[in-house]
Amino acid sequence: MALLVQKFGGTSVGTTERIEAVAEKVCRFRKEGHDVVVVVSAMSGETNRLIGLANEIMPQPTPREMDVLVSTGEQVTIALLSMALQKRGCDARSYTGGQVRILTDSSHTKARIKQIDEQRMREDLDGGRVVVVAGFQGIDELGNITTLGRGGSDTTAVALAAALKADECQIYTDVDGVYTTDPRVVDGARRLERITFEEMLEMASLGSKVLQIRAVEFAGKYNVPLRVLSSFEEGEGTLITFEDDNAMEQPVVSGIAFNRDEAKLTISGVPDTPGSALRILKPVSDANIEVDMIVQNVGQDNKTAFTFTVHRNDFNRAQEVLEKIAAGIGAGEVAGDTRIAKVSIVGVGMRSHAGVATRMFEALSDEGINIQMISTSEIKVSVVIDEKYLELAVRALHAAFELDKPPVQESAWG
Amino acid sequence: MALLVQKFGGTSVGTTERIEAVAEKVCRFRKEGHDVVVVVSAMSGETNRLIGLANEIMPQPTPREMDVLVSTGEQVTIALLSMALQKRGCDARSYTGGQVRILTDSSHTKARIKQIDEQRMREDLDGGRVVVVAGFQGIDELGNITTLGRGGSDTTAVALAAALKADECQIYTDVDGVYTTDPRVVDGARRLERITFEEMLEMASLGSKVLQIRAVEFAGKYNVPLRVLSSFEEGEGTLITFEDDNAMEQPVVSGIAFNRDEAKLTISGVPDTPGSALRILKPVSDANIEVDMIVQNVGQDNKTAFTFTVHRNDFNRAQEVLEKIAAGIGAGEVAGDTRIAKVSIVGVGMRSHAGVATRMFEALSDEGINIQMISTSEIKVSVVIDEKYLELAVRALHAAFELDKPPVQESAWG
Repeated sequence: MALLVQKFGGTSVGTTERIEAVAEKVCRFRKEGHDVVVVVSAMSGETNRLIGLANEIMPQPTPREMDVLVSTGEQVTIALLSMALQKRGCDARSYTGGQVRILTDSSHTKARIKQIDEQRMREDLDGGRVVVVAGFQGIDELGNITTLGRGGSDTTAVALAAALKADECQIYTDVDGVYTTDPRVVDGARRLERITFEEMLEMASLGSKVLQIRAVEFAGKYNVPLRVLSSFEEGEGTLITFEDDNAMEQPVVSGIAFNRDEAKLTISGVPDTPGSALRILKPVSDANIEVDMIVQNVGQDNKTAFTFTVHRNDFNRAQEVLEKIAAGIGAGEVAGDTRIAKVSIVGVGMRSHAGVATRMFEALSDEGINIQMISTSEIKVSVVIDEKYLELAVRALHAAFELDKPPVQESAWG
Repeated sequence: MALLVQKFGGTSVGTTERIEAVAEKVCRFRKEGHDVVVVVSAMSGETNRLIGLANEIMPQPTPREMDVLVSTGEQVTIALLSMALQKRGCDARSYTGGQVRILTDSSHTKARIKQIDEQRMREDLDGGRVVVVAGFQGIDELGNITTLGRGGSDTTAVALAAALKADECQIYTDVDGVYTTDPRVVDGARRLERITFEEMLEMASLGSKVLQIRAVEFAGKYNVPLRVLSSFEEGEGTLITFEDDNAMEQPVVSGIAFNRDEAKLTISGVPDTPGSALRILKPVSDANIEVDMIVQNVGQDNKTAFTFTVHRNDFNRAQEVLEKIAAGIGAGEVAGDTRIAKVSIVGVGMRSHAGVATRMFEALSDEGINIQMISTSEIKVSVVIDEKYLELAVRALHAAFELDKPPVQESAWG
């Protein structure tokens, strides 16, 4: 008998029919004897409908009123799900974020959770009731309604699981787990039974969109076992867990992430003097442009080349900024390329295995794929390549690291 | 410079365009220097949409969850109206019922207001802000969301006006005031500049649907001057006020109310013994059927006839109950008639004028209209007649009491 926090996203509660299916699932867990807290998002489309209404009035509504508006979306779902549970004889009670005192800071539309009062939920659980909580929302010290930003329902679920010391936080979504890579690109992509928090964080930041990155961070910080499962199919999903040196041998590489969201900028002929990186990057960050990978080549003739990637949406603005800088510091020309892709191998096993990067480069070289940039961390290696080779590269790497072969079997919540 | 509480109903805020028009109006009052608290309903259609969703899940949802669900309707409106005000440079802040601590009992879907904490609203008003409050909703002692029942936004407005000791509570609606009678029936029907609370209560209970009866009671109890105005047209509307013996001569009759909602039941041959009324009416009220007019004829041969009216929706049930009773107490047959109408003359001036009822009966008699039942109170006389004479009766009475002629001019908030 466990205490479970289960989160269902907008697609999973998109119609009253789907809400009934969620109620069915939750009731099954209750009948097995588990205590259940359910966190739900707004019905899919509802948040956009509300934003649409606001935008009919003004393009940039005040964040405080935006939060009052969009937080109604989840409130509708908690009421409907509670009704669907009660209809099945499963006692349930709904709560808004404010009612279970999910206390946040006052940063409207992107608030951060500071504290949760689990008392009221605990009383309901002790009384045999399912607790249904609106995701994505809280209140600040003054009682103003706040929201955590898009996808914040995952964060709510993890935060509740942490506050209640739940045995597991289950995120139900429209995929049935975390895969070694995108199954639409590689036929042999395999669902992982487990993945570590660090790997999941890398996967999420590298473009795998299964979980909201803040929720993963939060779960890692508060030791909340997190599981990703499908709302629509049966299955054990993927457990995101802590490294356990004794339990099993970690695979060297757990997954391959990729994205096409970035563009590359190179400024060449930069005087190779202290502070030149700062002089180039500060104006970029001052323009609120986020920089991802940065590479500085070893220079010659006291000149160096400086290459970095930004989000494609920021490419034009970044190029303008760079051209001004180039003139200012006496550098050469600014070159840009939007047709790049980033491919990364991720795995905690890399820590204890040498030669992983070499194996990656070899696999790419075997396919004749040129590497334009390289960036590494303790548990990942990322490369930038020509966009047109993306699928080829992902398939080659999936095969090279034998990701289609399953590791040892594990068990999980059914 | 006054403190005004202004309430806008669902039709007045039915689209974002109309919400902008409301904002425009409110801003005008602010610019004239008034402090304004605005109470809004859900956008028209929204409450029914939400109830529809609930009914897709179950026909009789639990009242607590129903309140969580439908209270989102007003929450959407307060956010949108606040945005529309801010867009016009008119500082505003929205509050749910719970946020301004409209404390109610725990009777979900028909809660009654117990207390309001006006502190937070006062701070905003002092800070030059318009306060926008969700109508129709509150919270109970445990923080559960409650609603006041349909039309409860009027009650919210009056309660806020009472708590804030507002100078006037203005109810904006789709009619431009209270009329001497329904203008669709009588061409010469005239908007009243003033009407007393007692008259308004009688008008409301007799079928005039301008204001919710509970709101009028509340306003009367807490001495809140109430004004009914049109959201869509300029005008001074109708002020509902207290009797002021010195100010002006009250007209003998202020208005004529009528409805076709009732049906008549007669049980004859009832043994004329103490307790027979109780034996007939108790089972009716036990069946949750509300009885309006009751007439007992003087009996002969120790038998009496007993006639009363019920809502037409309850007619069939009431007839079944009565037939059982008739058998039980040895009474005669039960006769029913659904084609009746009730017409009433209302006016505080009746108190000091004899012969008002006589004038009424004379006017009806002149038209050959037979009176089936009569019921009187201090400030009204009601008669039941054949439904087919309804319009004729209303026109005859409107003329007999010279309601088409205006009284002395008065001034009001513009």
